[in-house]
Amino acid sequence: MANQSNGASAISRAVRILEAFSYEAPFLTLTEIAQRSGIPLSSTQRIVTELVGHQLLERMPDRSYRMGNRLWELGTRTPGAIGLREIALPYMHAVQARVRQHVQLSVRSNLDVLVIERISARDAVVNASIVGGRIPLQHSAGGILLLAAAGDEVLRGVLRRGLQPLTPDGIQNEAELRHAIATAEREGYAIASGRIFSGSRGLAVPVRGVQGVVVGTLTIVEPNDESSPMPRIELLRRAAAGVSEALVRSYLPPGHPDAPPGGAYRSLVRSSESSMEYLEHLLPPLAVR
Amino acid sequence: MANQSNGASAISRAVRILEAFSYEAPFLTLTEIAQRSGIPLSSTQRIVTELVGHQLLERMPDRSYRMGNRLWELGTRTPGAIGLREIALPYMHAVQARVRQHVQLSVRSNLDVLVIERISARDAVVNASIVGGRIPLQHSAGGILLLAAAGDEVLRGVLRRGLQPLTPDGIQNEAELRHAIATAEREGYAIASGRIFSGSRGLAVPVRGVQGVVVGTLTIVEPNDESSPMPRIELLRRAAAGVSEALVRSYLPPGHPDAPPGGAYRSLVRSSESSMEYLEHLLPPLAVR
Repeated sequence: MANQSNGASAISRAVRILEAFSYEAPFLTLTEIAQRSGIPLSSTQRIVTELVGHQLLERMPDRSYRMGNRLWELGTRTPGAIGLREIALPYMHAVQARVRQHVQLSVRSNLDVLVIERISARDAVVNASIVGGRIPLQHSAGGILLLAAAGDEVLRGVLRRGLQPLTPDGIQNEAELRHAIATAEREGYAIASGRIFSGSRGLAVPVRGVQGVVVGTLTIVEPNDESSPMPRIELLRRAAAGVSEALVRSYLPPGHPDAPPGGAYRSLVRSSESSMEYLEHLLPPLAVR
Repeated sequence: MANQSNGASAISRAVRILEAFSYEAPFLTLTEIAQRSGIPLSSTQRIVTELVGHQLLERMPDRSYRMGNRLWELGTRTPGAIGLREIALPYMHAVQARVRQHVQLSVRSNLDVLVIERISARDAVVNASIVGGRIPLQHSAGGILLLAAAGDEVLRGVLRRGLQPLTPDGIQNEAELRHAIATAEREGYAIASGRIFSGSRGLAVPVRGVQGVVVGTLTIVEPNDESSPMPRIELLRRAAAGVSEALVRSYLPPGHPDAPPGGAYRSLVRSSESSMEYLEHLLPPLAVR
């Protein structure tokens, strides 16, 4: 079984090398990759060469490396991320046309909010959310809703990691966190005022999938002022209801009278109606690999 | 060096397993993964288990698998894909507000156009482009521009693969392809009428990065009718000039007087101005991993 352990560890090392790249450091030299991944330089060089061969990394003219477009391309096959984003996007645009701040879609990934999509305006308030970025659950309005839906084990994980409030308005202790979760459960929405940046607040509602399971949240990030957030909460609720309905329909079996066109593409793509019908009957020469 | 070959092949097998998932088949059983990847079932099972452990695959309640959100998340660190998309998106929205059909951003990946972003309207014409999808270069207006920029070796590759026109208006032979490329080079734009679907046409202009290198194309897909495309070509040209300028500024060294705010985040993120300044000075507790 020597192959098995070697094979297993080769994949793990490749993942660690990919994980060395981040938003703060999208371009890295071989030495930096080795340092960040903790893998000896010679192994790093060998794995990087192989990853370049698969186009999961790209070598730049200055001999640094960046993540390859092939990696992004593989990531476009994720129903839980890009599929949800395609379905939600028209509803998000409708909200953004009204609020002209930030509108975003997030899911839970372990103890963090993972931001799937964000639409912003040039002059919108400060917002730490970036597409593909993470925010610890307890700092975010959406995170509180996702915590409420996730149950005790995740809550214990968050408490174990430590609350580490970012501002005086951040959640300071377990009692405050439990209170925020209970309020969100009762009201069906969550508000986080100044928990990440004092001048901004997040308003969030849950997005539900099949059988009412919370699959993500829709959030507005807007000025943290004295205005009532309720009109925007209502806007978000209507948008989330639209996303949920479209999501549930997308997962109906093909041929079901309520199933939208698009065949297998429905869980990943949302284009014009006629394009979805076209894709459903796509001939092999153009079928998307 | 036994480890080396085992390691290399483990990574290749993992990539082949990830590549088994596609737009037509986003959910696969273990047996289907083994069949599509050509890897024995026992090895498939072992590698799939490891990929699930890294959250690159997800196991569904019905015991099928789908691509994991972690894979999508890693793909959001690709400057060549999501970075370009973030920079181009505001310009694409400005075009879409005028045309209300499909507006898309693409790059070349080997012999194909890789679609990075698409904005559509519900009642827009038939369009085969989907985010993360590929179209052979010769079928697409953007593809002709990318072929023109790529040079002879890529052209020979396209000819070797075979032109395989999809419609009577498709490019039928080498002479037609060379003529289309020469026209695109001379005019600085490309039009593909009815080459993929008879009722639709694509209009494309190049997007240039540092030193004028063509890094992608902006495309409108619209009805293939008698109207002059020139007003939309002009709209695309202005948008592409805006994207190019923003792209070149994004790659200026931090501290350069023309560099926009955002520090290292600039090559991957485009949010509100105040958010970019905030991100540039982000403190470690919230720095995006």
